[in-house]
Amino acid sequence: MFLKNFWYVAAMSEEIGREPLARMLLGEPVVLFRTEAGAPVALEDRCIHRRMPLSAGKLVGDAVQCAYHGFEFAADGACVKAPGCPQIPRAARVRSYPVVERHRYIWIWMGDEAANPDLIADFHENDDPAWARCGILMPVRANYMLLVENLLDLSHVAFVHRATIGTEDSEADLSLERGPGFVRSVRKADNVPTPPHYRSRGFAPMCNQVKTMEFRPGSFVVLTIHTTELAGPNSQSIRIILHNALTPETETSCHYFWSTCRDFALEDEGLTKFFLDVTTRAFDEDLHILALQQRTIDLDPSAPIVSVPSDAAAIAARRMVDELEAAVRGGMAA
Amino acid sequence: MFLKNFWYVAAMSEEIGREPLARMLLGEPVVLFRTEAGAPVALEDRCIHRRMPLSAGKLVGDAVQCAYHGFEFAADGACVKAPGCPQIPRAARVRSYPVVERHRYIWIWMGDEAANPDLIADFHENDDPAWARCGILMPVRANYMLLVENLLDLSHVAFVHRATIGTEDSEADLSLERGPGFVRSVRKADNVPTPPHYRSRGFAPMCNQVKTMEFRPGSFVVLTIHTTELAGPNSQSIRIILHNALTPETETSCHYFWSTCRDFALEDEGLTKFFLDVTTRAFDEDLHILALQQRTIDLDPSAPIVSVPSDAAAIAARRMVDELEAAVRGGMAA
Amino acid sequence: MFLKNFWYVAAMSEEIGREPLARMLLGEPVVLFRTEAGAPVALEDRCIHRRMPLSAGKLVGDAVQCAYHGFEFAADGACVKAPGCPQIPRAARVRSYPVVERHRYIWIWMGDEAANPDLIADFHENDDPAWARCGILMPVRANYMLLVENLLDLSHVAFVHRATIGTEDSEADLSLERGPGFVRSVRKADNVPTPPHYRSRGFAPMCNQVKTMEFRPGSFVVLTIHTTELAGPNSQSIRIILHNALTPETETSCHYFWSTCRDFALEDEGLTKFFLDVTTRAFDEDLHILALQQRTIDLDPSAPIVSVPSDAAAIAARRMVDELEAAVRGGMAA
Repeated sequence: MFLKNFWYVAAMSEEIGREPLARMLLGEPVVLFRTEAGAPVALEDRCIHRRMPLSAGKLVGDAVQCAYHGFEFAADGACVKAPGCPQIPRAARVRSYPVVERHRYIWIWMGDEAANPDLIADFHENDDPAWARCGILMPVRANYMLLVENLLDLSHVAFVHRATIGTEDSEADLSLERGPGFVRSVRKADNVPTPPHYRSRGFAPMCNQVKTMEFRPGSFVVLTIHTTELAGPNSQSIRIILHNALTPETETSCHYFWSTCRDFALEDEGLTKFFLDVTTRAFDEDLHILALQQRTIDLDPSAPIVSVPSDAAAIAARRMVDELEAAVRGGMAA
Repeated sequence: MFLKNFWYVAAMSEEIGREPLARMLLGEPVVLFRTEAGAPVALEDRCIHRRMPLSAGKLVGDAVQCAYHGFEFAADGACVKAPGCPQIPRAARVRSYPVVERHRYIWIWMGDEAANPDLIADFHENDDPAWARCGILMPVRANYMLLVENLLDLSHVAFVHRATIGTEDSEADLSLERGPGFVRSVRKADNVPTPPHYRSRGFAPMCNQVKTMEFRPGSFVVLTIHTTELAGPNSQSIRIILHNALTPETETSCHYFWSTCRDFALEDEGLTKFFLDVTTRAFDEDLHILALQQRTIDLDPSAPIVSVPSDAAAIAARRMVDELEAAVRGGMAA
Repeated sequence: MFLKNFWYVAAMSEEIGREPLARMLLGEPVVLFRTEAGAPVALEDRCIHRRMPLSAGKLVGDAVQCAYHGFEFAADGACVKAPGCPQIPRAARVRSYPVVERHRYIWIWMGDEAANPDLIADFHENDDPAWARCGILMPVRANYMLLVENLLDLSHVAFVHRATIGTEDSEADLSLERGPGFVRSVRKADNVPTPPHYRSRGFAPMCNQVKTMEFRPGSFVVLTIHTTELAGPNSQSIRIILHNALTPETETSCHYFWSTCRDFALEDEGLTKFFLDVTTRAFDEDLHILALQQRTIDLDPSAPIVSVPSDAAAIAARRMVDELEAAVRGGMAA
């Protein structure tokens, strides 16, 4: 099931324009486009007339015109034209989803409760001039919670990302905090090998790293990585913030929107490209793992698992989601 | 479900010969071939011995020989040879379906009631020397009723076929007649833009069009299109008859046999090729639409729809099919 | 369902080494590898920690290291390393399957009863210096019992293998014996056309053939073919033994391990290649048949069949398997 009463990232701002875009979100088909004035719109991607996906149509002014019989739907979902039909039936409308454009993303609200934009995750570094940013969308062939667990248990970095961003930090200190609406974990490793990608940029061979992972449902993980080389009094020290939005597509797939933000060397486009490349490479390594994991889970969903201390944050996040899902089920039952 | 007690088109005459042809019809595997004398034969495509598809075998005289153990089945479905078996078991037979070759098609009867060839649809223009004809078979990734609805509501022509056979005729007059075993609709549009394919053949820019669509179950739609250019006293006026046989393959696919017939310029092979090309192009546009529609329906078969006046004929046809299906179910329950 | 309390061939000896090999056996994911000393190991291919397939990992000494979080599992399935985990949980182990390397194969025991290597099928000709051998593994898109039936009813040879190893022997004498744990059938044909592959090696046009097929569950068929050319007092006479191990992969697929053994012309490598080529070609013909048969069965698993005398051995084998399956079900119910 999906937690619908949360904001999710539906698209990167630059993906949406005057061509309708089809995207499956939380198991529902959605079409995304912009009005002539540039406002983002998200509608149910299914014409109320004969269930044609509206995304196959085209925009006529601020409405999307169905490719089949030419019905047109405005941004609020109302049918505003039905060729050959003297009076448009009142029921002729598709669902319109609240959307907000913020921090380089289009955010969507698919729940039945009122949409409150104040609840949108704080990704302000994505378009704050004090930060430089890169990021893309990657398709994931796994349930979004497998990616949440991946991001909350960074003990995998030493193995999955050996050649890219990995470091041997199995002795790291772990701390965990659970508050209202978040799970936060800190992974602190002193005097560990500097990850390959930093060494390639001139860092000393050893470093200290502090990684903070904060999960918030629907499905966001903010990851802050603070790396300090061990090179005497003039050691470099840099901080990276990774905003991760994991939007469910189906029960076994999700959309992974990520961005890497830094507050130094803002004008260095080579560095931006470097972070884009190395992060893409590292996350490709993760997504290969996740697809294999999902396939093995599908073979026997009841196969048991055993947890260890480094799973604590992932388990807390899973429990938080379980509780939210139970509340939804309880509400439906009542 | 499928309505079995109707004739359906199983194949074009030229498809069937001395090589067995496999085709799924109404959810059942069928093998089609001709006897040495040329008579068409349709058998269950599943050897009664070990369930090998007979279509993988070869013809031996008037029998089809199974590729696995060499069992042979005559046109009536009886096993006439079972290598190494001194006495062929009486139960060793496959189902033989009544077939009739008429109007360039092989017609099949898959029901349990007696097959009456008089009930075969009248497609005589297909091989009447007073008519010129072209047509092919196209595979459709949608339930056959979606194609019936497509053919009965031609308001889609203005949108789907904009570049081929489309005309803006949303103000057309519609009339509907339902009689025993048929639904007939007339779409009459005066002073509308001449469709692109006629303009390309020298027609004046404006025309009158009368389109008659007649549905008959199992699954046939005869479409007559009468087009008169508005060019003064010598206006050209032509009539085209389109025979459409939509044979279900599975619940979400069908075989689309269509032919375009004209009673003018019979010897003009360039014109025949023109009609073949433009109709194929136009129907490709439809089949793209239908596949998207089927996929969206499959996502949520219970999603509601809203109908408008131009759906009247399609709704009447759907109701007729619903009643026929209910009668079958009632018969099975009794 | 699968009969688990039998030995099955999991792999050819040469397939297993110091790279983990993933293979689905009896519906379960298994990873196969060798210890540094060369001993074969078979483990459940699913990390107990987060259900990652271990086959995606690498070997570290005699353990396989999970590619995700670096957990290591020894040959007995015990987790021997869990990075960052001071005390490995006792439950942290994956299933280890008894394996035996014998007769060029790796044999696996996946049942809950004790594994007794004495019960491994006698394929000694596979590595007996008195015999020359060739053989490979072929993937089959059909339930293993369809292949058992194929091997027990050689009346198909005249049809499926017309161009390779076929002979017209529909008048052959058939005898059948069922004993404890085996079904044995003898097919004896006198004065029949010599199969094409023997004729190509200089055999006379006519021959006598005696074929003995012996089925033993789990799923083995030993096929002995004795061919004597009819060419007077100096007629050549050769004997071939085919060991067939058909290991279920899923309900609709299996692994086909076969080997052809001869006790003559042992040093003739051209002859070995000849047998490898002709048998591979002939079995490709079978597997094409079996995939079509499985597909037709899947369309309607309840479609009836009719049997003839040449099916007697296959029916006996099927009954033996049915009884074994019923015993398992009875045991589970009790």
